[in-house]
Amino acid sequence: MLALGRRARAAARQVSLASAERRDAALLAMAGALRVRASAILAANALDLADARAAGQTAAFVDRLLLDDHRLAGVADAVAGIAALPDPLGRVLASWTQPNGLRFERVTTPLGVIAVIFESRPNVTADAGALCLKSGNAAILRAGSDSFRTSTEIALALREGLTAAGLPADAIQLVPTRDRAAVGEILKGLDGSVDVVVPRGGKSLVARVQSDARVPVFAHLDGNCHVYVHAAADLAMARDIVLNAKLRRTGVCGAAETLLIDEGCAATHLEPLVTALIDAGCAVRGDARTQAAVARAEAATETDWATEYLDRIIAVKVVADLDEAVAHIERYGSHHTDAIVTADEAAAARFLAEVDSAIVLHNASTQFADGGEFGFGAEIGIATGRMHARGPVGVEQLCSFKYRVHGNGQIRP
Amino acid sequence: MLALGRRARAAARQVSLASAERRDAALLAMAGALRVRASAILAANALDLADARAAGQTAAFVDRLLLDDHRLAGVADAVAGIAALPDPLGRVLASWTQPNGLRFERVTTPLGVIAVIFESRPNVTADAGALCLKSGNAAILRAGSDSFRTSTEIALALREGLTAAGLPADAIQLVPTRDRAAVGEILKGLDGSVDVVVPRGGKSLVARVQSDARVPVFAHLDGNCHVYVHAAADLAMARDIVLNAKLRRTGVCGAAETLLIDEGCAATHLEPLVTALIDAGCAVRGDARTQAAVARAEAATETDWATEYLDRIIAVKVVADLDEAVAHIERYGSHHTDAIVTADEAAAARFLAEVDSAIVLHNASTQFADGGEFGFGAEIGIATGRMHARGPVGVEQLCSFKYRVHGNGQIRP
Repeated sequence: MLALGRRARAAARQVSLASAERRDAALLAMAGALRVRASAILAANALDLADARAAGQTAAFVDRLLLDDHRLAGVADAVAGIAALPDPLGRVLASWTQPNGLRFERVTTPLGVIAVIFESRPNVTADAGALCLKSGNAAILRAGSDSFRTSTEIALALREGLTAAGLPADAIQLVPTRDRAAVGEILKGLDGSVDVVVPRGGKSLVARVQSDARVPVFAHLDGNCHVYVHAAADLAMARDIVLNAKLRRTGVCGAAETLLIDEGCAATHLEPLVTALIDAGCAVRGDARTQAAVARAEAATETDWATEYLDRIIAVKVVADLDEAVAHIERYGSHHTDAIVTADEAAAARFLAEVDSAIVLHNASTQFADGGEFGFGAEIGIATGRMHARGPVGVEQLCSFKYRVHGNGQIRP
Repeated sequence: MLALGRRARAAARQVSLASAERRDAALLAMAGALRVRASAILAANALDLADARAAGQTAAFVDRLLLDDHRLAGVADAVAGIAALPDPLGRVLASWTQPNGLRFERVTTPLGVIAVIFESRPNVTADAGALCLKSGNAAILRAGSDSFRTSTEIALALREGLTAAGLPADAIQLVPTRDRAAVGEILKGLDGSVDVVVPRGGKSLVARVQSDARVPVFAHLDGNCHVYVHAAADLAMARDIVLNAKLRRTGVCGAAETLLIDEGCAATHLEPLVTALIDAGCAVRGDARTQAAVARAEAATETDWATEYLDRIIAVKVVADLDEAVAHIERYGSHHTDAIVTADEAAAARFLAEVDSAIVLHNASTQFADGGEFGFGAEIGIATGRMHARGPVGVEQLCSFKYRVHGNGQIRP
């Protein structure tokens, strides 16, 4: 593993100096190789699937693992799509001139070596490898053992694309073992060869990475997202946003898990919103006010406020005012994504300022918590930490920066 | 210590929501309290100085520890100067609108709780506390045991200023013990209460923090800075820059430690540059070419290329070309600050692109590696990592960001 880290570091230096044209050519060659090698990839996937079924994995697990012609074409298209994104490197983030004539520029550079640890979705192999290359970084990819054969074949295609474009194949390395000890070594940083770790998978994976990593981590553990229906909320808009935020897809991290309704509109909004949720097939766990308003609501317990259901269940609470809403979100939330519905601009401004979450929305669904919806083109995940990357992590967030200083002989007095 | 961390976290929330006017009022009140409490601070300093002298500390150490009326006025003025900087919070770093009408803004927010661990310079107590408050963060300050009494008195003044402005005194806490175990607890993050650690002091402190910290660190271990005199360098400009980069102050991290001279100008530039250094009182440790050119030059060993002398010593080597210069800097440098002297714009552009250092300069002295010279107003240190902050760490680098999303009822299809 240490040798793998050293190869990644050396390759990172080479791709950091490669032109955008060469990196994009490699991405297109990778997409082509994924298409050409489709039968080998699908054959490997069939073996992974057979093992997963034999091991009694759930249907949802098997579905995440499954590739077919259509899905694989989508994987290749996504890689080609990353080639089409603007170059994130060499962008001048700021420039200014000091009185002594020195001209300063802050320009984007690669981060270095990015380790991505993921579970059973084999498409992450291609997505993560492509995003790292686009941003001039080397990638160390650790696939879940259930998708090991599929990921191995995908990685071969990626490396073929790198080589075709004259870049080092080691810019994308798949950890060549199912041995779980490899994860521990990656989390220790491979002797300085790993700059950041990105976990992609379930809560237990993320928790382990966050607790054991000795290098920075881009991740979120929970997405306990809130919709706060303020006293000045339009009922129809609130209904649309609440139903979408909870039910469009319940398994995504931006799905709403708690609905807070302001005392000031509870008389008119509480019953119709809760009824709409229940009628749409969502279980409601409410406080006493909610249960009094709608008999079909169950009772919420303290645990519910802190639970990310990722299911057709929502917790509902009436709050006295904006202050209580913000306090509730700060106490129980996960600093991921929270929304306010209101026609009151001042209330919205306060909510957006005071809720300390990566993404705060006014009059929009929490399900917009997604790099694609932000216009980032693609994302490697969503981070809730406050260091470096926060919110959707796209190619820009996989960059660092340096200062270029232009003089004409200046010396410091 | 865990209780101290919890108090810092709670105070961080309060100062993160305080207006710029209130934070600046607190800074001015802190500056005023430092002036009013001058006699108590100087009395405490006298006790620290007496202990340091009794313990046989060096004159340089005692000088770093020493406060007098003039220096203390400078400390207060620096705090007032931080109040006068623009507010780093709430700045819109980027804004854009998606086709569905959602308007996105990336705006600066505080990082949270910043722990600063420093050695015998008591002024760091005030500087670090003020920079953290300006950027809406809470500070946990761990003073060197030799400056403990002085730092305690300074911290009292800072907390008095916070209280006077209606902010929680716990936004700036000095660790109230000389017990070294406290540092270990801070490096573990105080149960999630520390967001970043900034070490200020000698190499052993920084090395310990970098090796033991379980939270992000803004720091640099070495400042092994290079000046590369390219074949197309003007000799007079090269002489000015080399002498300034090496000798203006030898003890700062931006001081040059190695001079690389291109083969293409060695015949004309090597002897005069080395002679000028030696005549200015600098020892030169050179490769064979250097020794052949100037008899007074000593012989360099492999160790010299990797040494940060922080003294009147410089290593000198003739390199074949730009490629060898870049390769030498990548091999032996510390990714801190490196400069090229050349009239060739293309060579300069390549050097600035290919040298992977926080600060790269063209035709300017490496001694400009300083937040003040960048126009940042003040800095808490210089970082050589690639995560979040790189180069001088000023109030902007002590900020994180969040996304504000403005809609009018958008739901995700």
